[in-house]
Amino acid sequence: MKSIFQLETLQKEIRQFAKDRDWEKFHAPKNLILALSGEVGELAEVFQWLDENETHSLTKSNRNEAADELADIMIYLIRLFDVLDINPAEAVAAKMEKNSQKYPVNLAKGNATKYNKRKQR
Amino acid sequence: MKSIFQLETLQKEIRQFAKDRDWEKFHAPKNLILALSGEVGELAEVFQWLDENETHSLTKSNRNEAADELADIMIYLIRLFDVLDINPAEAVAAKMEKNSQKYPVNLAKGNATKYNKRKQR
Amino acid sequence: MKSIFQLETLQKEIRQFAKDRDWEKFHAPKNLILALSGEVGELAEVFQWLDENETHSLTKSNRNEAADELADIMIYLIRLFDVLDINPAEAVAAKMEKNSQKYPVNLAKGNATKYNKRKQR
Amino acid sequence: MKSIFQLETLQKEIRQFAKDRDWEKFHAPKNLILALSGEVGELAEVFQWLDENETHSLTKSNRNEAADELADIMIYLIRLFDVLDINPAEAVAAKMEKNSQKYPVNLAKGNATKYNKRKQR
Repeated sequence: MKSIFQLETLQKEIRQFAKDRDWEKFHAPKNLILALSGEVGELAEVFQWLDENETHSLTKSNRNEAADELADIMIYLIRLFDVLDINPAEAVAAKMEKNSQKYPVNLAKGNATKYNKRKQR
Repeated sequence: MKSIFQLETLQKEIRQFAKDRDWEKFHAPKNLILALSGEVGELAEVFQWLDENETHSLTKSNRNEAADELADIMIYLIRLFDVLDINPAEAVAAKMEKNSQKYPVNLAKGNATKYNKRKQR
Repeated sequence: MKSIFQLETLQKEIRQFAKDRDWEKFHAPKNLILALSGEVGELAEVFQWLDENETHSLTKSNRNEAADELADIMIYLIRLFDVLDINPAEAVAAKMEKNSQKYPVNLAKGNATKYNKRKQR
Repeated sequence: MKSIFQLETLQKEIRQFAKDRDWEKFHAPKNLILALSGEVGELAEVFQWLDENETHSLTKSNRNEAADELADIMIYLIRLFDVLDINPAEAVAAKMEKNSQKYPVNLAKGNATKYNKRKQR
């Protein structure tokens, strides 16, 4: 299982999975976004009627379902990066850097206001 | 940038980012799922009016937006795994294994029918 | 504003809006579902970092944004019914009837368990 | 079935359905948005692997599923308007008016560019 810790290895496995099944023809970007939306929807369904406390101590069954849905989201997400030929590690590093600039610690501390709605001081 | 290729390192960076900003209190599971749904929605908006050809040769501007949205989805997804204390690498490996069994190559070849709707033969 | 209380009238207005702008070519079902997902995502963003109390007494600004996003969802939803030639009033009435059967008051009272996960007694 | 053509009547029926089942406690705004996201996800799953032609001539089974999912989205949407005490007819009329101003026919004809990205001429 170790290898899958690496995004690149994971991406290759997912690509091969699609290729083996001749599913590349289904994996147009819009289709994959619909699939991603589907999996996020399934995740939402696990949590929708839980109260705050229940979401912090999931039943075993809900926890297993959540793990499966999170994994499905990851799989389609990695596949989308691949199909769009966008490097996930680079995109994430660049976005983390942008976020650091949009949300500097001194302005964002304890405050989740979107950067473009933050009141000037 | 190399370190971020590893899911575990990435997860630590995202956790620290939230901690530095005292944002842990906002990161309840349901809130993070709403945020994830928000980012998938933003990705969908980049593609919604593009025709098939346009989705395969994105303009530079659309490509940059897509990269940012995909990164945001990844960041919230990794954060959700963390908050729910589910190991992403293990969950994905387990789900890939399940998918292999649900969609064996001989039955799934060229055919994206959901496993539980596949006609028995 | 009275006329718009009727689903059918509303549907005609939305159809005319698209026709006037020659937007029918953009309104393929998958595109409209992506647009719907985009609007639900924008709604989610209004609420994602609010705590329970804040969601029950929205600021004026959040309330106006929520109203706009809910309206956008309604507009795309009505448009999807139209493009797929599915009658909204009939579909909703049929689904309400199904829900009554899946969730009879005696079994569902105070209990949001999905009908197919309800424990037999 | 006639009565349900009216948004207001429909809203009352949905409210009563929740009340009868003592489900009001589950219908916090964030929960309903998660539920809405879940239903949009289910709709997306009906269409995700269909090609353009297939989406325009759905099989009977897909069409029935789409009708059910669209109805579910409508039900949760109407419920959200109710719980947030936002009048759906007024919100939709106001948004249609805004859209008319953002997308005047002469600028928007044949062109789905978002109003704030439209090139000045």
